[in-house]
Formats: sequence, C-alpha cells, structure tokens
Amino acid sequence: MPRIVHAYALVASLLVPVAAMGDSGSELGARIALQGTSNGVAPCMACHGVDGGGMAAAGYPRIAGLDAGYMVKQLGDFRSGKRNNPTMMPMAKGLTEEEMAAVSAHYAALPVPAAAAEPPVDPAAKIASDLVRWGDWTGRGLPACGQCHAPGGNGVGSSFPGIAGQHASYIKAQLRAWKAGTRANDPLGLMKSVADRLTEAEVDAVAAYYAAQPGAAPAAAGKAPAATEEARASATEVRPGVVPDHGAPPAGRATGPEGYFQPPARDAVPDGVFGDVIREGEAIFADTNAHPVSSEYVGNGQACGNCHLDAGRLAASAPLWAAWVAYPAYRTKNKKVNTYIERVQGCFEYSMNAPASAAGRPPAADSTAMVSLVAYSYWLAKGAPTGDDTMPGRGFPRLPETDQGFDPERGGALYAAKCALCHGEDGAGVALPDGRTLFPPLWGAESFNWGAGMHRIDTAAAFIKHNMPLGLAESLSDQESWDLAAFINSHERPQDPRYQGDLAATTKELHGGKFDYYGRREGPDGALLGERPASK
Amino acid sequence: MPRIVHAYALVASLLVPVAAMGDSGSELGARIALQGTSNGVAPCMACHGVDGGGMAAAGYPRIAGLDAGYMVKQLGDFRSGKRNNPTMMPMAKGLTEEEMAAVSAHYAALPVPAAAAEPPVDPAAKIASDLVRWGDWTGRGLPACGQCHAPGGNGVGSSFPGIAGQHASYIKAQLRAWKAGTRANDPLGLMKSVADRLTEAEVDAVAAYYAAQPGAAPAAAGKAPAATEEARASATEVRPGVVPDHGAPPAGRATGPEGYFQPPARDAVPDGVFGDVIREGEAIFADTNAHPVSSEYVGNGQACGNCHLDAGRLAASAPLWAAWVAYPAYRTKNKKVNTYIERVQGCFEYSMNAPASAAGRPPAADSTAMVSLVAYSYWLAKGAPTGDDTMPGRGFPRLPETDQGFDPERGGALYAAKCALCHGEDGAGVALPDGRTLFPPLWGAESFNWGAGMHRIDTAAAFIKHNMPLGLAESLSDQESWDLAAFINSHERPQDPRYQGDLAATTKELHGGKFDYYGRREGPDGALLGERPASK
Repeated sequence: MPRIVHAYALVASLLVPVAAMGDSGSELGARIALQGTSNGVAPCMACHGVDGGGMAAAGYPRIAGLDAGYMVKQLGDFRSGKRNNPTMMPMAKGLTEEEMAAVSAHYAALPVPAAAAEPPVDPAAKIASDLVRWGDWTGRGLPACGQCHAPGGNGVGSSFPGIAGQHASYIKAQLRAWKAGTRANDPLGLMKSVADRLTEAEVDAVAAYYAAQPGAAPAAAGKAPAATEEARASATEVRPGVVPDHGAPPAGRATGPEGYFQPPARDAVPDGVFGDVIREGEAIFADTNAHPVSSEYVGNGQACGNCHLDAGRLAASAPLWAAWVAYPAYRTKNKKVNTYIERVQGCFEYSMNAPASAAGRPPAADSTAMVSLVAYSYWLAKGAPTGDDTMPGRGFPRLPETDQGFDPERGGALYAAKCALCHGEDGAGVALPDGRTLFPPLWGAESFNWGAGMHRIDTAAAFIKHNMPLGLAESLSDQESWDLAAFINSHERPQDPRYQGDLAATTKELHGGKFDYYGRREGPDGALLGERPASK
Repeated sequence: MPRIVHAYALVASLLVPVAAMGDSGSELGARIALQGTSNGVAPCMACHGVDGGGMAAAGYPRIAGLDAGYMVKQLGDFRSGKRNNPTMMPMAKGLTEEEMAAVSAHYAALPVPAAAAEPPVDPAAKIASDLVRWGDWTGRGLPACGQCHAPGGNGVGSSFPGIAGQHASYIKAQLRAWKAGTRANDPLGLMKSVADRLTEAEVDAVAAYYAAQPGAAPAAAGKAPAATEEARASATEVRPGVVPDHGAPPAGRATGPEGYFQPPARDAVPDGVFGDVIREGEAIFADTNAHPVSSEYVGNGQACGNCHLDAGRLAASAPLWAAWVAYPAYRTKNKKVNTYIERVQGCFEYSMNAPASAAGRPPAADSTAMVSLVAYSYWLAKGAPTGDDTMPGRGFPRLPETDQGFDPERGGALYAAKCALCHGEDGAGVALPDGRTLFPPLWGAESFNWGAGMHRIDTAAAFIKHNMPLGLAESLSDQESWDLAAFINSHERPQDPRYQGDLAATTKELHGGKFDYYGRREGPDGALLGERPASK
C-alpha cells in the first residue's frame, strides 16, 4: 500500500509542529488520526489519509482543513445514527467527546491539499458556475451554493463546510443521499431542500466544479451562530429528511416564473461599455458594503442584495424591475416626489447607514456607484411597462395580521431555532474575511438603521414570510413570521438618520404605530429603543 | 343712427390726444377714420366704430389696438384683391399708401374695448381651451392658436393679429373663409392649413372663446420678422389658398396617432402631489427660460418645448416618452453611460446655455426643476416598454443625404421666405414681454450653443423636415431642409461649454465631420464660427 508507506513517511514531520503547538489535545488528535485508539478505533488516515486528503475513488472525503466544529457534529451524528454511515458509526461510538474534539482539531489544522480534479467543460461548466454563484431563484427558489458555503466554497463556521477541493464522488454521493433522504442531518433541512431541486446533471456539474476549486480553510464565522442544542433540535426535528411543503405558491410569491415579470437572462447583458456598467451595477448590488466603488457610502455590514434576493430579480423580494417602472413617485416617508435615484439614495441613507460611512452620505446622482445601480435596475426592467406600480411580486407582499398579534418572546425562541444558524444568536450575521457579507446582520451596529423599511415589523414580517429561511421561503407560518420580525426589531440598531437629539420628539414626529418599536419599547438593556443606538 | 351720434360725441376727446401726439399722420388717420376721404372713401367708423370696436352682429371686426403693420398689409391685400372683400376693396383702392399707414396707426393706437361676449360653456369651453393652449398635434398636426397669436391671443408683430376680444362672428367667418379658400392672404398658408383641420364645432368654440378674452395691444415683436416683399411673395405664391399636400405620413412622422405610442391624455394627470409635480414639469418644459422654477438654469431664450414640440409628446420631434425608456444609455458625446437626468442636464448645458445662466449650471438631480421634468417625462411614457430604444417616432428621424448636399446660400433665400416670418431675419425669434419665448431664436446670444444637438446640420435638417414650418411639417423637401439647416448653423451662437480657450483644439477634439461648421467655416462676419461666439 504505497499510500500508507507514504503516510508514515509524513508522520515525523507532522508530529513535530503538532507537538510544538502545545495545544491541549493536539497530540491526542494526531495519535488517533495516525494510530487509532486502544479500544479499536481505526486510524483515520487509513481512509482519509495522513494529510486528510481522503480518497476520491472510494468516495472518502477530504477532511483536512474542515471546520473542527463541523467535524465534531458529524462524529456525533454518526454515533447517534442521525447521520447513517455503517463505517463511521462504530468509529464514532469508540471515541470519547474529548477524542472527537482532538481528532477534529487535528484535521482542521492541516492544510487543504491542492485540488487535483479538472474543472468541468461546457455545458456543465456553465450550469455549475450559474448554480454556484446565482442559484436558480426565479425558477426553483434555489439558493446559490456560495450563499451558504461562501463564495469560493470554502465554507464558514461549523454549519457550512468547505466543499471546494472536495472529491466530486463524495459531493455527488452526499447530494444524492440528501435527495434520497438517507442523509438527513443538515440544519433546517437546507441541503435536503437544495438537493431535491437539483437535476442529476446539475449534481454532476456542481460536484465536478467544486472538486476543481482550490480548497482553503473556512472563513472564521466571527460572530457566528451558537444556537443551543435545544434550538438545533427544534430546528431539525420538525421534518428530518422530509421535503418542506411550501404549499401552492401564494399570491405574490416567486417560486416559479408563472405570473411574474421575467427580467432578461444574466448572460443577455450586452457587450460594450453599457454592458460593463450593468455588470458593475450587479456586482455593487450584491456586495455594496465591500465593493470598491460603493463601500465608501455604506456605514454598516449591509448590501442591497441582502433584502432584494437574487440580486434584485426575485418577485416578492422587492425586485428592482418592479421598482424601476414605479418611480418617480410620491413617498409619504419624505413627503415629496422621489426619483428612482432618490429612492436608492434612501436605501443607502436608512438601510446602509450612509451617515456613518466614509463618505458620510449616499452616492451622488452622477456617481459611478449610482449610475451603475440605475443602469442595472433599468436593464432588469427591460420590457416592463413604464408607470405600472402594480406589478405582481412588487415589494414584499403584505402579510395579513393574525389574531395573536406579534410577540418578541415567542419570536426569540423561534429565532434561535430557525435564524441563529446563519444570522447568529447576537444577530450580527457573518462577514467574510474580505469584508463581504455572507449572512447579513439583523441588529446592532452593522445592521440597518432605525427608519429603514425593514425596521417596521410589518415590512420585516412580509420579507421573512416570503424569503426566509434562505431557500425555504413560505415554510414559516404567518404567525411565526410576525413573531420573528418583532423579535429582530426589538433590538437596538443604528440611529435614525433624521434624529435631531431628542428621542421623544423623533418618535413623535417620525415613528409610531403598532408596527414600530422605536422610542416606545425597551430594548434588552432596559433603555428605550433608539435611546442608546448601536454604533461602531 | 344713435351709434353715429355717439361716435361724433367721441371725436373731440379723441382728436385732442391724437393732435397732442404730434405723430406724422395721426391727425390724418383720425380724419379718415371719422370722416373718410375727399375721394369717396367712407369713414371707417361707420362700420368699425369710432372706438374701433367693430360691430358683432354685422360681422365687422374690432380693429382698435390691432398692429398697424397688420392692418396696412390687409388694406394692401383688399386693394389688390388678394384678400377678397367687395366692401373693403373700393375703400382700400381709394387710399394712398400714406393714408393707409395713417389710418392704421390711428386704430392701432386706440385702446382695445373690453370684451363683451360671454365665454363658452362645456363642452365647447374644454374644446376651445385645449385647442388654444395645446392644439392637436398628435391627432392632426394642429398647432395651438396661442403658438402664433401668443398666449392670451393678443397677437404679436404684424403677421399674427390679436384675436382676443374679437367678435366671434368675425373669427368664425374668417376661419370658414380660409377653409373655403375665399380668404387666402395668410403667410405660408398657415391659417388655411389650420382651418382645414378644424371641425365646425371647433370653429364655433374657438371663436366664442376668443370673443370673451380680454383684448390688449399685441406684444411688440421685438426683433421681429422683417422679410422682404419678395420673400413674402415667395412664401405664399407656392400655393395660395391650396391645401398643402404633405403626402402620406412618412415613416417616423406624427401626423396621426397610427403606429406611434400614445402618451396619456393631458387631463389624465392624477390628482394629488404627484399630479401637481407632473403639471409643473409640463409647465417648466413649455417655458423653461421663463418659468420661476427653471429660469435660473437657462442662459438663453430657449425652452425644452422649442425642440420637442407639443410639450414633448409629438413623434418625430424627440418625444419624451421614447427618450424615457431609452435611458440610461451610453453616449458617445461624453463617452459614458448617462442616466435620464444626466441627459436632461445635457440639454440645459448645451441647448439652454446653463453656463451663462444665473445658476451657472444645470439643475441638480434632486432640484424641483429636475424632479418635475423627470416626473413629467415618466408620466408621458406610461405603458411604454422599458428599454425599448427603437420606438417609432423616436428622436428626429434622420434624413437621407441628397445629391446636392447642403448649401447655406440656397438656405438663406429659403429662410427669408419660409422662416423669417416667425424667427426673424436676424434669427433672434420673438420673446414675449413676460420673458417667455414665442418663436425661438435660431442663432445669436439667445440661441442654443455650439455643441447642442441642433448645431449639427444633419440633426437640424431632420428636425426641420419633420416639424417645420409650424403646422406645415413635411411640406419642405429634403433638399430644402438640408439647406435651411446649413444656413441656420452657419451663424454664430453661444460658445461650446467644453471650450477651453483654443478654437482649433476644441474643433479637433470635439467637432468635425461634414455636418458641423464649428471652427471650420467662416461666419457672416468673416471670423471662423466659434471664434467670436455670441454672448449677451
């Protein structure tokens, strides 16, 4: 077995730095990986390799560089049978909690081996790159792979493993297992819902794509989710391995192309300067707070695409094509007629906290950022009738009020179960190392301001119902959506840009009504919301 | 004859100021008016009254306060038979040139009697007010009455008589005479072309409308037309009393609603703030250089509506509805993608000489002026497909080049015959006393800049062919249109806003090509065009 010989040859060099690290468990982890345990657990390297690179032909995954927490969770699931694997179950059963942590830490610390696979060629390459980057929201409500596994596919935190550089055989096997229901330990059933919507050709294409991507350690989750075990259980127990039943697409919902305006295909952007500007607008829209052209106008961790899913294309997610044809329009918010540009400036002002940005203001009407966003919006609306402010799927279709009203307490429990996975228990979301936002912050200094549309409980409830959790739209009840919105908006966030130094006066003049907690409810710290606004 | 008695009673009071004026001919004029002449010409007052108020029941027109030049011309036409009137012909034949001038001056100096007629009621009132203010461009290529007779209908200069406070019976009789061909002394056949397009109900409505309007002396024509007699003859000889044959509507031409996008009806503007802003946009568009909201951004005598007829509604006259759906777009002019707002700012910069305005710059994107213009444009495009940059009637449909090319010399002769009537031999057009532009200046300090679209001979030729003379669109041949454009653009005008102090460099960088005389041809003063740009 040349591989084993080769593996042993590596031991000495690996053990030295491991020992030098002095981490508790490091030596233990290496020992388990290389030698197994005294009670019969085989050395991990026997299948996963000394370098953790796995074995493509046999379908053994690469585990080097995976998140340790992710691996601990998988071992626990192997042990309990929640993740059904006859080979791994006895191994996991033979490990103590300490040993699981140690061996997970060991492999997590190993460098990710270079990807050896060749990337797919067209048409698979196109299929894969579209799914990885954009998903298929309009057609199937399908999120992009990169929306959870991070752009590049190296994962984030303990819930979203790196898949770049993973063996195609393993990726394919897992997608098929989720589809078949033979693997069902994914949080919220997210992977089940994704796999169910993929064709076999897409499974092959995506697996081949990621197998050829350069692997790297996952992004630190930073203020990452830390939901309780109870919450995790609650999140998955409702339907382990069961396809979520979204029911018939409700009015205003974009689960399919039927009945909604269809913006032009992404690859229909024209060549030339105008097309370049449209593409730049799309890029700015997706990563507003990190894009070099627009970051100076953003004072928090938000991007346009956080509230307008599928980069502004998705019905019932405030699609740009519906907004474009409805402006200029009179807005009660500022009591004047707003051009489309002024409306977008309002998004920067209120939702992206422009007052706290480097520029201290939204982009000017003739700035590169604004012209690009305008060109992109216009292009998405190609063919839409000018002046039609009733396009199906416009905005966030309002939810009916419920008999129970809405309750932040109820919402809090649900948040831990359904939302903290991505947005974190502290609501801070997840930022990538390059500054891009993977999961947007929902309160706190990096979130949208008081005064943003989303600070209204009715608006947030509508957004949640029709769009959350990502890829599981419409799976929450109206009541759950209302309660979640109330919980999220019962936390502090950046000040209303219109605040003039007097909370009571600002509340009286600009806030009020039953869907607005600003200045009227105490936050978690006991102060009135808006009294101690979040700032960096 | 109580009227006569009454008239005589006025003589003394009238003669005193007349004599006191000391004008040559004033006394002579009064004498003719009140006593007639020794060779048998009856006193004018016998029919027209001592006060010049005419006699409604008999159809005798009010002549008090009419322009003297207009009356001289009419007397000449009565004498020659060009204006066929068995009663007036012998009177006119009995008057010398000096007497005609004197009696015309006499009546011109009399105050216009107060209108005694009751205004029409709906539906006639609505019919009339629409025709008076807007005409019916889209339906029939019909100019508004006020576009030549001035808003208010008190006329301007010697070619466009006051009709406010005129007897309805007289107005009706004249419109019918033009229609029937029994009156045919109108310059360019303009009134014939108008009358032909009016229904009997409209004739009645318009006549009743003007009869009830307060009459006043006509606006001084200022730099008014002074075409030679030859030019006048040339202008009318082509088809006295004959309906101009525009032929079948050429492609891109708005002589009827067929085939062109139809903007919403004017009275479909919604109520409320948004509607108010749209209406203000329409008003600004019509009188940009005089409107209190926009005048500070205009450095010349131009308004948007001068180049975009029917307030931006008319196909083949750069209609706003076609422009709205085609922006943002890349423009070679400034080598970048322009939003609609930037495009409109370009109109201010180049066509309305914003650098020479009070503000010194075009209106900002969020200014009242710009937001109003944007709202108005958007509303006109209601229902038009976003992104369609090929709408029929867009822009000024290009003219094919002709074998003869274009020649300012040929164009000059034609200009005197066809254009000087309104735009003046000096190209300065006519401004109303309140600062509004009646006939836009075509060159000189009050005209559009070098660098404006209209400074291009091909663009101006297309505009002329499809839109000029007002109400006689398509009546000029392609060759005539080219030659007129060349003549107009062979004159000096305000400097190109991009000029950096070096004509040759500016010409090389920004101008050139066979349709652009800037920096490449000598103007009338022998200097290169652009070398001594017109300024106030």
